[in-house]
Parts: sequence; C-alpha cells; structure tokens
Amino acid sequence: MKILVINCGSSSLKYQLIDMASEQPLAQGLVERIGIEGSILTQKVEGKDKYVVETPLKDHQDAIELVLKSLVDETYGVIKSMDEIAAVGHRVVHGGEKYATSVIIDDEVLENLQDFVKLAPLHNPANITGIKACQELMQNTPMVAVFDTAFHQTMEEKAFMYPLPYKFYKEDNIRRYGFHGTSHKYVAGKVAETMDKDIKDLKIITCHIGNGVSITAVDGGKSVDTTMGFTPLDGIIMGSRCGSIDPSIVTYLIKQKGYSAEQIDELLNKESGILGISGIGTDFRDIRSGVERKDPRAILTMDIFGYQIKKQIGAYAAAMAGVDGIVFTAGVGEHAPEIRGRALNNMEFLGIEIDAEKNNNQNIGDGMEISKETSKVKVFVIPTNEELMIAKETLELVK
Amino acid sequence: MKILVINCGSSSLKYQLIDMASEQPLAQGLVERIGIEGSILTQKVEGKDKYVVETPLKDHQDAIELVLKSLVDETYGVIKSMDEIAAVGHRVVHGGEKYATSVIIDDEVLENLQDFVKLAPLHNPANITGIKACQELMQNTPMVAVFDTAFHQTMEEKAFMYPLPYKFYKEDNIRRYGFHGTSHKYVAGKVAETMDKDIKDLKIITCHIGNGVSITAVDGGKSVDTTMGFTPLDGIIMGSRCGSIDPSIVTYLIKQKGYSAEQIDELLNKESGILGISGIGTDFRDIRSGVERKDPRAILTMDIFGYQIKKQIGAYAAAMAGVDGIVFTAGVGEHAPEIRGRALNNMEFLGIEIDAEKNNNQNIGDGMEISKETSKVKVFVIPTNEELMIAKETLELVK
Repeated sequence: MKILVINCGSSSLKYQLIDMASEQPLAQGLVERIGIEGSILTQKVEGKDKYVVETPLKDHQDAIELVLKSLVDETYGVIKSMDEIAAVGHRVVHGGEKYATSVIIDDEVLENLQDFVKLAPLHNPANITGIKACQELMQNTPMVAVFDTAFHQTMEEKAFMYPLPYKFYKEDNIRRYGFHGTSHKYVAGKVAETMDKDIKDLKIITCHIGNGVSITAVDGGKSVDTTMGFTPLDGIIMGSRCGSIDPSIVTYLIKQKGYSAEQIDELLNKESGILGISGIGTDFRDIRSGVERKDPRAILTMDIFGYQIKKQIGAYAAAMAGVDGIVFTAGVGEHAPEIRGRALNNMEFLGIEIDAEKNNNQNIGDGMEISKETSKVKVFVIPTNEELMIAKETLELVK
Repeated sequence: MKILVINCGSSSLKYQLIDMASEQPLAQGLVERIGIEGSILTQKVEGKDKYVVETPLKDHQDAIELVLKSLVDETYGVIKSMDEIAAVGHRVVHGGEKYATSVIIDDEVLENLQDFVKLAPLHNPANITGIKACQELMQNTPMVAVFDTAFHQTMEEKAFMYPLPYKFYKEDNIRRYGFHGTSHKYVAGKVAETMDKDIKDLKIITCHIGNGVSITAVDGGKSVDTTMGFTPLDGIIMGSRCGSIDPSIVTYLIKQKGYSAEQIDELLNKESGILGISGIGTDFRDIRSGVERKDPRAILTMDIFGYQIKKQIGAYAAAMAGVDGIVFTAGVGEHAPEIRGRALNNMEFLGIEIDAEKNNNQNIGDGMEISKETSKVKVFVIPTNEELMIAKETLELVK
C-alpha cells in the first residue's frame, strides 16, 4: 500500500510517496515558488536521476497536478497510475482543541480548519488550499489530516493555561497548544523502541531543534508539557524567533520606539533568535564558523542556545518527577554536538552522563545513543521522520 | 547606631528605624495616600500604643517631615533628635547595569537614577522623590541607595540576554535585570548561616513568593539567573501579573481585539496572574478559601502556581549543576504550605524530600526547615527582611 504525504506551505509543497510495507519513501519531492514566477518541482527517486521541472504553476492545484504527473512519469516516476495511491496524509499545523488525533477529512473538518485560520494565519490557509486541490484531483482517494498540535492535546490545564484573565481562554481560545507534535510523538516512540521498554513506563524529554525549536515532556507516551505555546514563537531561542521574553518588552517597543503590532511580529519572528543575537544568520553552521573564528556574539549565541535547552530539560524532569530518556532530533538536534554538549554537560546530578566521543560522532545513521553505559538517563540522537509518521497515522485511519 | 530605611512608592512610604546593635526595628511605619485626600501615617513601636496621624500631606517631603516628627515624638517616638539617625538607606528599584552594589547617593547617582526612569517608570520616580525629600530635611545625614537589581548584576550574558536583535541591548538596555535582589541576597545568606556552611560552597534556589514572585539561582553567593526580567512582569505567575507568556499573545490582542499597548500593560500587570485565572482576587487566602469550597478555578490557580515554581526549581538546579538548599520567603512563600507542597512533591529524583508535618507548621518563627532529615537538599522557610538588609548595606557604606 502506498500513501502520499503532503505538506503545504504558502508558496511551497513538500511530498513523499511512501510504501507502507517497507516504510520507505518511493519518491520525495519539493515544489517551490507556487504562484510566483519561476515555479519549480524537484523529485528524487532512489536509483533514478533527479527530476526537475520548471513550469508556471499558478496555484496549489497546478502544483498537485504536477506532483501526480511526476509520480506516474514513465521515466522518472514510481507508479503506473494514481489509483495506486491508497490515501493522502496532509500535515495540518493547527487543529485547535478540537482534534487530539488525526482525522479523515470531510466537509466538517474543512470547516473547522477554516475556523482555526485565526489561530494559525500563516499556516492553515496553505494547508486548506492543499487539501482542496487534492480533493479536486483525487476524488475517490481518502484524505487524512495529521495535526502538529494533536499530540499535545493531552496536556493538563495547569500546563496549557496562561495566567491571563480566564475569559481569553474561554472566548478567544488563547492557551498553549504546542507544535511539532508529529515529530515529538515519532521520536518518543523510537526512544521506547530503542530502550526496549513500553512507552507507558517511560518519562522522555524530546528536543526538536531545527529552525523552529520545541521541547516536550512525554510521560507514559503522552505529551504533558511543551515549550511552543499559543503560537510557535513561545519557548526556546530559534533560528529567527526569540522564544519566551518578558511580555513587557513588546509594549515597551510599541510605546518607546513606535513599533506597530505587525512590525513586532516581524521583529520577533524573523529578526530575533540566533540571527538577532549573532548578527550572522539563522543557519547553525554559520554560527559554528563564527565560534571557530572566536566571534564573541557567535559564542554567546551558542551559549544561550545550550543554556536554554539545559534549563528546559531540568524543568521537564521536575514536571515529570524524573526522566528516563532524552532525545535530540531535527536539523540542529541531529547535527550539532556542541549544542547537545552545552545542554547536557554537568547534568550528572540528574543521572545524565554524556559520552563526548559518541556525541561528536557525525554519522548518526538511524539513530545513536550518546550517553555513557553507566548513565542512568539514556540520551539519543534520532533523525525525525514526520512524513513516515503522517503516513502511518493515515494508514491507521483508512485501513 | 540607628539607621532609617525608606521605601517610597508613588503615593505611599514605608519606613523602619533600625538599631544596628540589636538588628531590631525600633519603629516601623507606613504613610499612605501621599498627595491624595485622606493622607495617614501609622507607626508601631514595641511596647507603645499604635500611633496614627491623619493630616494632609501634599508630597513626599511633607510625608518625610511627618515621619521624622513621629520618630522624635515625646510620647510615641523612639529617639530624642533627628541627629540620632546615622544614615538613611533608600530602597531603589532600578539601578540599571551601572550599580552592582549599593552606593552612597551624590548628584551623579541621582542623575543616573533619573536615567533609569525609562526602565522603571512606575518605581524610580517615587524613589527619587523620596531621596530628594530626605536630603532636603536631613542635609548632613548620609544617604545610601540599595537597589533591587544590584544583586543580579552577577548574571552572565547567557542568562540575562533576550534573543532579540542585539542592538536592543546595546542601544536600549533591554535585558533581564531581575528584582527583589535585596530579599534574595538576604535569605540566601540565611540559608548558608542555617546550614553552617560558607555560601561560596552552596547552590541555593531562593523563592520570593509574595504578591510579586521571583525565583533566583544563587551559586556561590552570586545570583546566576532569576525569573523577573526586563521588568517585574517576567517569570512566574503572580498576584495580578501573568509572568512569562507567548509574546505573540500581546500582538494578537492588539491586532484582533483592538487593545492599545497601555491597555495591555494594565491587563498583564493588574488583571492577570492569580486574579485572572481564579476570577477571585490577588490575595492568596481567598484562593485558599476557594479551594476549600472546591472552586475549580481556585484549584487550577493553585496548581498552576505550584507547577510553575516546580519547573523553575528544576530549571535552576540544571543551571547550577545541582542544588543544596531551597528557600521560600515573602507572604505566600512563608505562609502557604500548599504552594510549597505542590512545588516540591515528587522531587525525590532531585534529592528533595519534604516533611509534610513540618511543611504544615504555621509558626515559622525566624525560619524553619521543612525537609526531612534524610533529604539531600535542605528546604527552608525563612521570613525575608529587606529593611534589615538595606540597613546593613547602608551601615557598611557609611561606617
């Protein structure tokens, strides 16, 4: 059985066609500049040449059409007919409080997603557009929505409620939602598998550290707390996002410096974080080069990054009354031993002992352990695979 | 030697005259409604009747004049002449990055305090007014400024820098300052004294939990991190302040609900926190009554309060690579065993074992230990005494 996984951004679309028997992607692709001059599709298939198509794509429907055409292409494709696609799994950013699990998409679901646009104005519209385009072109294929927020719906009120007037929760749905849920769920499951234990018996801290950063406390397989909040801006320092700051800074900038709310959003989401502190960029590799040439602000950036993760690990260990496993995933989490090192050094009091040599190993493969054999808490680096997770959830619902 | 300690608010003034030999207050008083109809002074002296004066006070100079008159009052006073006051210690909220210690007040200091009004618009103007009024009336008496921020100036950049564009730090002084410094320093010192150890060898977490809440990591006697930030709004849930929230909530409320920055400040500072969640009030005792009558929002408030403190203790243990002592102080910290219990239960993995019976003891006296004898981490409840600390710092500088 083959499942197509679609992840729509506002002008881009990532896709994978996954064979569920082997759990391997048959094809992976990316469509960029949808609705913009220079639209381009790039598709990779194991054992075949990279397939690149440059053609005008006026909207997501055009893009999906091209994706399907590329998948059935005689030379570069991997299937004979669209009918081989058993189902489509759509990554959807925001499922509000309504969706604690993935769901088969019907009209009611689409209406609800429309309601959540208020909560995720940058993401949900693109997700909806992608779903509608697929429905148009694959009228008999079941579609599933897999939400970034769903995994975190198990949080208790004490973890998700902001200390604001209660009416903002009741009337305006302002609360902590959390994101990256698919990734956190996936790597937490992998930790249990690797430790050969039932996830119900484990306290796991999952650190998804990419351009966006979120850390989750997973107790018995359930998300009990997470750092991203009402929006993906909350929590830990990120590529260009500030994470948690004193909310008074926002009103100070408006009152003293004349910023508008829109400018503040831009400032905190696009010009802050690693980029803001370092003045170098959002790419972790450029910060690493900065540290190598002893740039003090690059060093500071690295220190803040590691320090904030370290504190969060301590906080979530406290939240769960202990921790059995910690996992790092996503771009930086998988490839930055210096961040893992800063986050985990001097944590022996918590039972965490890092093996420096293992931590510096760049060949992580399907995953590796970086804690010493004597370490009470096991620490892993595991590549995330949100696409496979979306495909699995989709299969679960349609089979 | 006798030292007068002055703590000026915008329309109020608290004072103590402290005898430095016994370290006991000879007189304690409060002036309220300065510059407002119904001005009133209340003074308490051990062994004497409470002294209450209602008289118009148009400004802080009038108020200070009345304080001095009350202190030398033949019947209700405690000194014969103002000359017995060796020095005046002023509590000043914001010392910026300039003052890492207390300082004798001269014209330059006053100018700097004026500069910091931008950073503490609600507090520093009242502090300056109080200093100037005292200078006018006690021209030959040395004055010392003791800053709420000074103790935290030992924080490293990685702890005090917000992940914003760096220029906001360089040009606008936006960074974490931290407050309640005098209290944190005082109770940390008391913990070392009680444990009979050199504070240089201790990792202490100080929890100042009153109407304002701040938690500090004190490593070797130095503040290495603290929860209040650029302003006293940052950090943990407080009486009517929200503490840390997703900064996007601020821009959301402005864009979606039409709030102004001023209304947001009012909302987050005066209508949030315990008041906001519970809908009951800012007074912890009212929340307690709510819990007794099983009000779900009172229970939620209590749970959030304890949970946030618990996570912060975990975070600061991680920041210091362990913790030897934890101390609770200020109104709620001293008198709310249910908050201490919620914050510290199930923390055995950190070496914290609370003795429930000791924790429920309401008669804390000069301080008490609430951890079990077997507890690796010692936990104390110690009444704060900011006035004595201010007097000691003042004495140190003028002697």
